Parts: sequence; C-alpha cells; structure tokens
Amino acid sequence: MSSTVTSSPANSTPDSSSPGSSTPVSTRAAARQLITPQRLAEFFAPRSIALVGASETSGWSRFIVAASAAVGYTGPLLPVHPRHDKIFGRPAVRSLRDLAEPADLAFILAPTEAVASVIDDAAAAGVRNVVVLASGYREAGPGGQELEEALVSQAAGHDIVLLGPNTLGFLNTAAKAAPFALTVPLPLTPGPVGIALQSGALSSALLAFARAQAIGVSTVASLGNEAMISTADVLDYLVADEQTKVICMFLEEIGDPAAFSAAAARADQAGKPIVAMKVGASQAGQAAALAHTGAVAGDDAVVDAALRQLNIVRVTSIEDLLSTAALLGYHRWPRGRRMGVLTASGGACDIIADRATAAGIEIPPFGAATTEAIAAHLPSFANPRNPLDVTGYVLANARTSLMTAIDYALDAAVDDPGLDFVLFTGFTAPEVRPPDEAVAGLLEARVGWLAERLRTAPIPVIPLGMTCTDLAGYGRELLAAHGLHSMAGMELTSRALGHAFSWLDGRGTVRPLAGRPGGPAGQAAAAGQPPVVWSEARARDLLSAAGLPVVPGRLARSADEAAAVARELGSPVALKISSAAVSHKSDIGGVLLDLSGDQAVRDGYGRVVQAARPHGGGDEVLVTAMRSGGIEVLAGVTVDPGFGPVLAVGLGGIWVELLRDTSLRLLPAGVDEVRRMLGELRALPVLEGARGGDRADLDVLATVIAGIGELACSVSGLRALECNPLWVSGDQVEALDVLVVADPDGGNNPDHELNGAG
Amino acid sequence: MSSTVTSSPANSTPDSSSPGSSTPVSTRAAARQLITPQRLAEFFAPRSIALVGASETSGWSRFIVAASAAVGYTGPLLPVHPRHDKIFGRPAVRSLRDLAEPADLAFILAPTEAVASVIDDAAAAGVRNVVVLASGYREAGPGGQELEEALVSQAAGHDIVLLGPNTLGFLNTAAKAAPFALTVPLPLTPGPVGIALQSGALSSALLAFARAQAIGVSTVASLGNEAMISTADVLDYLVADEQTKVICMFLEEIGDPAAFSAAAARADQAGKPIVAMKVGASQAGQAAALAHTGAVAGDDAVVDAALRQLNIVRVTSIEDLLSTAALLGYHRWPRGRRMGVLTASGGACDIIADRATAAGIEIPPFGAATTEAIAAHLPSFANPRNPLDVTGYVLANARTSLMTAIDYALDAAVDDPGLDFVLFTGFTAPEVRPPDEAVAGLLEARVGWLAERLRTAPIPVIPLGMTCTDLAGYGRELLAAHGLHSMAGMELTSRALGHAFSWLDGRGTVRPLAGRPGGPAGQAAAAGQPPVVWSEARARDLLSAAGLPVVPGRLARSADEAAAVARELGSPVALKISSAAVSHKSDIGGVLLDLSGDQAVRDGYGRVVQAARPHGGGDEVLVTAMRSGGIEVLAGVTVDPGFGPVLAVGLGGIWVELLRDTSLRLLPAGVDEVRRMLGELRALPVLEGARGGDRADLDVLATVIAGIGELACSVSGLRALECNPLWVSGDQVEALDVLVVADPDGGNNPDHELNGAG
Repeated sequence: MSSTVTSSPANSTPDSSSPGSSTPVSTRAAARQLITPQRLAEFFAPRSIALVGASETSGWSRFIVAASAAVGYTGPLLPVHPRHDKIFGRPAVRSLRDLAEPADLAFILAPTEAVASVIDDAAAAGVRNVVVLASGYREAGPGGQELEEALVSQAAGHDIVLLGPNTLGFLNTAAKAAPFALTVPLPLTPGPVGIALQSGALSSALLAFARAQAIGVSTVASLGNEAMISTADVLDYLVADEQTKVICMFLEEIGDPAAFSAAAARADQAGKPIVAMKVGASQAGQAAALAHTGAVAGDDAVVDAALRQLNIVRVTSIEDLLSTAALLGYHRWPRGRRMGVLTASGGACDIIADRATAAGIEIPPFGAATTEAIAAHLPSFANPRNPLDVTGYVLANARTSLMTAIDYALDAAVDDPGLDFVLFTGFTAPEVRPPDEAVAGLLEARVGWLAERLRTAPIPVIPLGMTCTDLAGYGRELLAAHGLHSMAGMELTSRALGHAFSWLDGRGTVRPLAGRPGGPAGQAAAAGQPPVVWSEARARDLLSAAGLPVVPGRLARSADEAAAVARELGSPVALKISSAAVSHKSDIGGVLLDLSGDQAVRDGYGRVVQAARPHGGGDEVLVTAMRSGGIEVLAGVTVDPGFGPVLAVGLGGIWVELLRDTSLRLLPAGVDEVRRMLGELRALPVLEGARGGDRADLDVLATVIAGIGELACSVSGLRALECNPLWVSGDQVEALDVLVVADPDGGNNPDHELNGAG
Repeated sequence: MSSTVTSSPANSTPDSSSPGSSTPVSTRAAARQLITPQRLAEFFAPRSIALVGASETSGWSRFIVAASAAVGYTGPLLPVHPRHDKIFGRPAVRSLRDLAEPADLAFILAPTEAVASVIDDAAAAGVRNVVVLASGYREAGPGGQELEEALVSQAAGHDIVLLGPNTLGFLNTAAKAAPFALTVPLPLTPGPVGIALQSGALSSALLAFARAQAIGVSTVASLGNEAMISTADVLDYLVADEQTKVICMFLEEIGDPAAFSAAAARADQAGKPIVAMKVGASQAGQAAALAHTGAVAGDDAVVDAALRQLNIVRVTSIEDLLSTAALLGYHRWPRGRRMGVLTASGGACDIIADRATAAGIEIPPFGAATTEAIAAHLPSFANPRNPLDVTGYVLANARTSLMTAIDYALDAAVDDPGLDFVLFTGFTAPEVRPPDEAVAGLLEARVGWLAERLRTAPIPVIPLGMTCTDLAGYGRELLAAHGLHSMAGMELTSRALGHAFSWLDGRGTVRPLAGRPGGPAGQAAAAGQPPVVWSEARARDLLSAAGLPVVPGRLARSADEAAAVARELGSPVALKISSAAVSHKSDIGGVLLDLSGDQAVRDGYGRVVQAARPHGGGDEVLVTAMRSGGIEVLAGVTVDPGFGPVLAVGLGGIWVELLRDTSLRLLPAGVDEVRRMLGELRALPVLEGARGGDRADLDVLATVIAGIGELACSVSGLRALECNPLWVSGDQVEALDVLVVADPDGGNNPDHELNGAG
C-alpha cells in the first residue's frame, strides 16, 4: 500500500499546492481565475473555429474537417497557414491577425516552436480560446515543463483559456462543434454520455464502441497536459452541461485530488454518476502511464479507496465504462435490486442468474398473480418462474400476432410488487428490414408497443441483447425512432447493473479528499531526500504524547537497568534494540520475546546489543511488557505523494498478507468511519470473538485507531506511522510495536529527542 | 463445499452406474454399443434428411430450411406429414415408410405422443439416425422419465441412434448439413470451433457472437436430454472431427463424470482445447438449471476443481467462451508468456498492461536491437518501449506509404528473442471500402503484407481491435480473403490469452475422475434417507484402524473413569460428549478444553453429561490429550452425488471461512497430489513457519491427508469424513477432532460398534 516516494508532477491547476511545480503562484492564480463556469461553457461551444497550421497533407486537419461534418457543424472552419492560400477549398489567411473577425476558438496545429507566436497572434486578434495539439511540453521532461509554464503564463496574461497542450481537442454534439483531431466512427449519435480522457488517442476506441452500441455522447474531451483546463474543470463543465446525464472518464493520474474530489462531490450533488477507468493497476501499467504523461501514478489500492470515497464507479474495460454509462444515462434507475428476468432460453436464465448473483442482484420468485398471468401464455411444459424461459416453442410458433408470451410476461412482471426492475431479452433488432411487408409491419408495431410499455411501466424495464454485438442498420434506426435503448449482452449488462447499484448506494456519501499536505513533507519528498526510520522509543513517545496507549516499557542502557525495568513491569518482557540505525530489528536478532527472570533479561540485553552492534545499534534497549491472548491488529498510515495520508486497518502480523483483507481510507476519517472500516473486514468474526476466542471492543478500538490517523495527519514530514501489532483484548488496546518513517527534518515534537534514540 | 444430497438424474450413458435411473442395464448396454465413432461421424454428416411433422406454419421447419441454406446443404430435405401433400414447395409423403429410399437422418418434429410410432416407421424404412425435438420426457418428471427410457429402448432395439429428445438438432459446416431448428445468423462462417450445448436455444446467441466476430464453426450440436447420444459422445465426435480444432461447451450438468472425463482426456491427448461455460455457480443459477433440464447441478466449487483436473478452461460468458476458442483455434500457440504490445495509443498501452498483468502475462522490455529498429521510425517525442505507443502522429501523417511505424515495429518485434508473441493493434478493418481507389489499394496491399508477415513471423502475432465491435462488410471480407483473424477488444483478448495459457500449462496433466461410487452410498442417497453422524469415538476408531494418527484419548462413562484417563494422558485434557445423537457438541456445551487436575476433570465430566442430557447425549465422554502450539489444518472429504469423493485441504478452525483458501481435488489423489494442494494454499507460509512460528513437515502432513482421502474412498455409504483440526507440529500430525457422516447402513467396519457410541 505504500507509495513510491518520488517527486510528483507539476500540477496544472494552480490553486492547489503542487510542490513539484515551480510555476509562480501568481501565474497559476491568474490562470485559475480565467476558468469560470461561463468561460468553460463558451469554450466547449465555439461557433467559429480557426485551424492554425492546417494543411491538406496533415491528417489532423482532415480529421477536424471530418469530425465537424460528423457533428453537423455549420459555422466557419477558418484555415490559417503562413504559406498556403487555400486549404480544403477554403481560402486561408496567413495569421490569426488577418481574420475578418476573431474566431471563437483557435485550434493550433502548429509545431511546438511556433505555438508561442500563434498565442500572441490570437491575443492580438481577440481570440480568447485555444486548443494546442503540439507535444514536447511537460511530458518531455524539465525543459518541456518550463516551456509549458511559459505557455500558461503567456495565455493567462492574454486572457486566453487553453486546452492542452498535447491534446486532440474535443467534440460537442449538442453545440455541434468538433475541433477534434481524431477519426470519428460514423454515425455519431448525440446523447447523454459525457466523456473526458487523459489519453486522447483512446477516444476513437471509445467512440467506436459507443457507435456499435448506439450509445450517444454529449461532449468528448481529450484533456492533454491540463496546463490550464484540468480534469476537474472538465468534470465541472460536464456537471453543468445540460445534455450530459452521466460522465465517463479515462484517467491515468489524479493530479490534484482536492480539486478532483470537489468536482466529484458536485457531480454527486447534481445526481450525475461518474464512471471511471483508471489505469495503472499493474506495475507494467504504471510504467506505461509514466512514459505516457510524465506523471507518477499513485498506488492502485489508494486510488481504489479514493474513487470509492468519491462514489466514482471504477471499471476496468472500455466496454464496461460505456455499458455502465449507457445503463445510467438511458434507463430509469431501479429503486432496488430485485430483478425479474424474461428470456426465451433456459441457458440464458442460468447465465443471467449466475452473473446477477455475482453482481449482488436478487432474482426473487414471481408473485402469485404474475405466475398465474404468465402461465396462461406458456405451453404446459414451460415453468412460469423467475428467471423465466418462455421456451423457443413460443417464438417459433407465434409470429403472426403482435404480442408473444414474453410480452404478456412483461405486462405481468412490471406490476409485480416483489420486483424493482425487469431485464427483457425478448426483442431482437434485425440489421435488415424483413422483406415480407407483413412481418416488417408486425415488427414495427411491436417496437412501438414495447417503447410505450417501457415508458408506462411502474418499474424500469431494461431490454438487452444476448451477447455483445453491434446494433446496426435497420434495427438501430428502428430502436432510435422509438427512443429505445438496448443493452449489449448478458455479461456486460449484469456488470453494468452491479456498478449502477454501487453508485446508487453511494449517493450522498461522498467525502472530499484532503490531498497531500503541503509543507516540509511534500517538499522533502519532492527533493528526493531518503526518509529516516525513528527509533522505536521516539515513535512510542509520539503516540504517548498524543494520549494513545502503548504497552508499558522503558529504555535501558545496561543489563542491570534492563533487569530493573523488567522487575518493574513484571514477567515476561520483550527486549528490542532501540536505534534509528536499525530498521529491521527482528531480522538481525535485535528482538527477544518472553523473557522471565533477572538472568534471562540480563543475558538478553547482552545478546540484543551484540546482535545490533555491526549495524550501529548502540546500547539502548527497549524493555516492554508482554501481552498474551488478545488479538493483533494492524493500524497503519502511509502518506501517498498524491492523495496524502491513507489509513489501513486489518488483522496484524502475518495475517495482513495472508488474509489480504485490509480496509483503506484516505484521511481524515473519524471514529465512526473507522468503525465502518472494521465492519468491512472479512476477519470481523475474529474481532468479535469467533469460536470463543478473545474479543475486541470495537468502539474502543476504533477510537484508538482514529486517534492514530489524526496523529499521523498532524506530523509534518511523516511518510508512515504503523502500529503492528496493535493489541486488543476487550476494551484494552495497546500498541505493541510502533514504526515511524519520516523526512530527515520531519516530526513536530523535537523534544522527543531528549528521550533517547532519535 | 458439501453437495446437496438428492437423487441424481438418470444418466443417458448406460454403461455408467446411474443409481437414480431405473433403465434396465441390458437396454442401456445395447444403446451404448450403437454409439461407435463411425456411427457418430455418420450421424453428424447426413446427406439426406427427412423432416417428420414438418409444416409451413411451424417455425421449426422454417428454421431447418433456412439453416440448411446457411450451410449450403445440397441434399434432399424430405417432408413427411400425415396430412399435407406439399411443404415448402416440396412433395410430402405420409410416413417415412413411403420414402423412395431411406433418409440418412430423420428430424422428428412430431409431438411427443407421436414420436414412438415415427420411430417404428423409421425402423421399417431403414432410417438409422433420428433427432427428436419433442419435450415432455426426463425434464418433465417421473412419467417423462419412463417415456424416455422406453424411447431409448425402442430406438436401440431398432439399431437407431438418437439425438434428444428435447433437442434443436445440429449443424455441420464441413459436411454442409443442418438439421437445426433454430435461427442461424448470416453469414455463417465454417471454421475450427466445435460447439456442444446443453441449452439448445442458447446456440443462436453463440452463433450471433461468432458471426459478429467472424469466428467460424465446425459442428454445433444441441444435446437435449442426452437419452442416447451424451455430452461425452459429442465430445468424442468433436475430438475425432478433422475440422474441429477447439471445442466449446455450454454445460448445465456433468451427468456422467467418468465418461466425460475420459472424453476430456482424449481431447487433451489429441491437443484439442476444451473451453466450457458451466452454469449453476449461484443458488439462483442452480434453481434455474434444475427447472430447465431436470438435473441436479453439482456444487460449483467441485465442478471447478473437476474442470481444472480435466484441463478444461472454464469461462463465465459467451463472449469469453468464443474469444478463447477463436484465439486457440485461429492463432499459433505462444511458447511463453512474454508479450510484445504494439499500439497507437498510450491509453491502450496502459489498459493492455493492466489487463495482461491481471491475466499473468508479462510485458518485458524490448531488446536493444528492437528498440533501435523501432526508434528509427518514431517521432522524437515517442518512446520505443514495450508496450509501444507509436503515437497518433504516425497514423495521422503516414497514409501514403504501405508500411507505417507500427508495421516497422512489428517487423522488429517478431525477431526479438525476449518475446514469445506480439499483440498488434495496428490494423483496423473498415466496414466500407474506401471510396478513394488509391487508399483502398494501399489498404489491400497492407493486409496482404500483414497476412504474409504473420505467416512467416518466428513468433505468433495476434491482431486485435481495441473494443468488442463487429467485424462487418468489406473489412470482414478483406480479412477472410487473406486468412486473417482479428481478436475482439483488449479486455476479451487479455482474458482469452490468460485462458489459453492456463490450458497450455495444463496439457498432459489430465487426471480422469472416478465419479460417484456405486453401491449402498449412492443407493441410499438416491432413496433420500437422511444421513447419520457417527459418535466421535467411532469416527476416531475408523481412522486408527486405518493407521492414521489421532490424538490419544479414551471413552469414560463416569467422573472417576474420566479422572483416571486424564491422569493417564497427562494434563491438560479435553472432554467431549460422545454420542451419535449430538452432532454440534460445542454449541450445546458438550465440549470443555484445557482441564487440569482430578477435580476439574470430574466436575467437567458432570457438566458435559448434563449439558448433553436434553439432547439425548448419554454418559459417554471422550477424554483426549490437549495439544498446544502447532498449526491447525482442515482435511475433509465430502462425497458429491455426481463426482464422488472430493478432498478439501486448508488451514483449520475459523481460518477455513476467513481465508477462503481451500484446495480441492476429486479423489483419488496420491501423496504427491496432496503435496501440490498444500503448495497451492495462500496460507502456505503459515505451514512453513512464517515469522518464527511452528512449522509443518509438509511431506508427513501430505501422507496423512492422502491416507484420509484413501480411507474415505474405502468406506461405503460415506457422506463426509472431516478432520478439523488436524493438528501438525513438525513431523507430528494428529487428528484432534474427527467427524463422519454416513448413510444409516453405511460403514465398512461394523465391529467399531463394539467400542461404543454408534
């Protein structure tokens, strides 16, 4: 769970404390002030677009022209080129300054070295919004970083709002504008799904799947380097955008957790679900993300905890991303998890039952009235149960009437008070219109009936195809004409339902993230100074000073003193070398447990000091009381370079790794939240005294752990604070072992040094 | 892990012992003898087909006619109907007896009550193969079961091989025959994937996805009730079938584990992968399966273990089923897991890296030569690393030459000795031919180059699209013309790769399954008699008699006797009520631990007997030695009604449920196999003495556990035999608690009764 300690990339949102960035605060603040909701709304709806550096041989230009056609853009596309007179049949001007009137937006296709002068031209021409395609900025290293800062400063100075650099632009189907330098698969359907991507090139993959499934989009934005307009800004724009009902994000990094979480909280308040694909779960994935955006990806478990805290649904494929968004964007939201399933295949019933159960969805029996109504339309060998298989017999033998058995079943199921929604596989949209006019007429009448039935049904009805295949041709148009949306396949739909319920459950619980603390900690981390491990005595003092319980113990500097302390504490005792020089005490023989009697303690003192000597251990040995019985818990805080302090709770000792059962929260987290963390553990029965073992007072335990979290947040320069084990028996809680890792100059209690082994 | 004890369905393969079936053994044997490889090959390649009961108003008939056209069937389709003269423009005869010459196969569409007379007609007419569509047999209850047995008997008596009843038939693209009563999405592509389904109606969903992805099929068979031709038979047929390279199965039950496993072993030997979707993982799923086929689905964890032992890849969606099959059926098999990744999107690199890592696939750095060769074709800001993003720049600016940077990268990567295969996203097949002739020509030349490159590359190259969208129109034809197959999407392809490697790893390790033991156990289970729990004393004796170690202990019938036994054993001791009437000893206070001293033992005896009295506990108390330290293991065998005895191994006590870390094997399993089971446990470090704790001699432990497994197999009427905890410390292993559940008349050691509490 601990994150790599490396410098964090400069963040593009200037009001956040970004220790890695050297952009002057004044510039950042000036740039920030430009990004108002009004400016963003204007930015994403330009009515005239200049293409600076456009040429007919450039793929980018061709893509923009095609994308503009795809969204039905009717405004001017104004080519600007220093040497060409005519581009795509349109007269070109030499510079933005030569335009008759300022374009709403300039898409700058010019090479990196020419961008600055184009910005000046834009300013002179009164152009207030620009998209910068060029690469070679932040993602290219320190030189590029400087260049990017200069760019922001220049644009902000001219009152220009900038998307990019290193972006492919955006498209907006409601405003019918598409300064978007990438292939758009046709037809492009306007719709409820807003998309923001940190990898612009990936948007064609998303759009291809959206097209295949007739999933309509509102605005699609490639975020690029986020030098000025950030992920959080686009999130805010999409929350405000009327056409957008659900937001999809492809994320490689969450650069400014505080701004991001504030935007996510606003989305939650607005009732707009966010579905995110955040890559970098694998080591290899992190390396790729590093190369791609020049950003250090946070540790994946921390990201997971963060997204959960923000009620952002996390998915792992493009198909899941868009299916979940389509479900939430097109369909009424079920009020509960009780699902009716209507199919014409027993196998489909089995598959849906398996997948739905895996996604936490129930398939309760139909009510008596529903069963009776359905039975009336089934052959005797079919069973009117939920999930329902009307059997192929029905489909094969009832093509001459408008409604078949599955439709009658739908009629009955939507009125079943025991159901919250219905999954309906009874409609297949053919790609080609049936040549038989009567058959086609019947089909069209049935779609009309179905659309009306869905609209009037007391509970949501979700139509789906059996597998993930394209909706194309006639069938696609037929559904669109009736305002119907069909989900793609049993697998994707089951998962989308699971995601949707998890979002619905999480509404209103969003807790904003603090982000990494500024000040010395971040600074030192940014400077790459290696952290130091405190002596255990110093670490124990930190806890004690905060009123947190540690097992009784004292430092001894001789065998005699050790024996005296042991007598004081009572047998048995533990001895541990206490030295900042020795970080893995057990491994070098610096720890002895269960010592009883003067002689054993004296001998032990000698052995421990001797074992630690080659490692620079000194003569200080911590003598502590031993605890038997009880339960060993882990309570640890690590400071993520991006997200700040993260609390981990689980069973302690070897069980941490064996159980893989740790609950995480980004801090701050109060006692109630920690109590919920304990409740999430699979090992909860152990804490509750499973099979007559010791039990823990969970309220007391949560209070101590919350205190540990609070303490960790207060220590400047902290990298990690871990109690493992934190021993608990009933309402007795004591830290048996305390580890603190901090920056060399970190620690807010310098007087602790007096007590020994700093 | 324990399975529901219910009667198993009659199995259609008469040579297996099917306790639930009352079909006379002679009939079953006669039917079995008909099913030879030669007969199956003939059955699935009919050159003339009679449609008995066909009519123009029947959907089934229309489907068969359309399916026949889809496969290019050129033989006669001969309508037979008692009342119609002409059907689908073809002259109909009144009975099979009226055909000029016998059809190779008769598809019987007639209603249930007419089937028997049609079979007689078929026999009289010399028709040797029939498909029976009608329902109302085994799946409809006891009456249907009888009807089905009569049907088998009748057909076998006439030397007729029968598929069904309750089947939709089959199609065979190589033999161009399709007695298949279901919609076939067009175009239907012949190819390497053989499909067998226990839910016939689902085949149209499979075929729809296969069509969308241009995945070609060989034979698709709906298995129906398997009255005569069983799942194992079709598996055997597909293994023998030349066109079939990989086998897909949709399973609701594995009726005859022995026959099924033998067929799976033959598939493994033949190098034909089996990919299976086995439903019934959820409770709800099992209920659905029950309703659908009248079969009791086995417990899912047991099924999982069984399929793993048979090296059958288990998937959970139709999309995974066919993607995995396509990967194994169309592409060369990689010799290792080191993957090169070539894309034009950094986001795609991230996604593939994440998903590949999740699937156990490596993405090593390119070799120096590869890096150099790739760098030569990239813009300076792109990074020639693995996974490779050639950047959109390359695609946007290189449409006038045959090869782009990604193609040069491919050229280099296939020669990289550090790679085992390459994933290539560099080719998109457009649905429509580019209107610009030059562009189209270039595209076609490039496909040609790519196909040739793939053929000659030293390592496999797997082309894939970014998301799961259809391959359609021009692009589909273009790929087909060049013999190219493209995978569908990063998610499905990553998973398919993971599945493929798991199959490749498992080759040659298939261990046949014994199936459930015949005799009293099965009989009693079938008869639904409730099982009994043995007294612990009797259970301990069973182990002792088999030479397996149990903790020392003896029965005491009075407080004095208990004290005497305790003195003999040494302090402390445990007391447990020993009675067949008390199955949950701890819950009623019938167990006391850690008693030391005469008085404590005497008192304890009284308390235990008193606590058990209301439950009919009697006066017998087991006094056993206590063990401290050590590790508590679970070693348990349950007898699955279908698969027979299954061994479970894991950490004991509460950890069984907390860790969810149990290794399963269908028995028999020797010492080596049990040793491998221990090695599979996540908790292995605990057994190996993690952090200085007690450790287990794994060889000794495996020997004892294998002995427990062997013993369990030898006890007739056994339902479960569980040692929990089985205590181990170094090479000392002792069962501290033994549980035996068996049929009332089970148990092969009646003399144990003498020892007490039977």
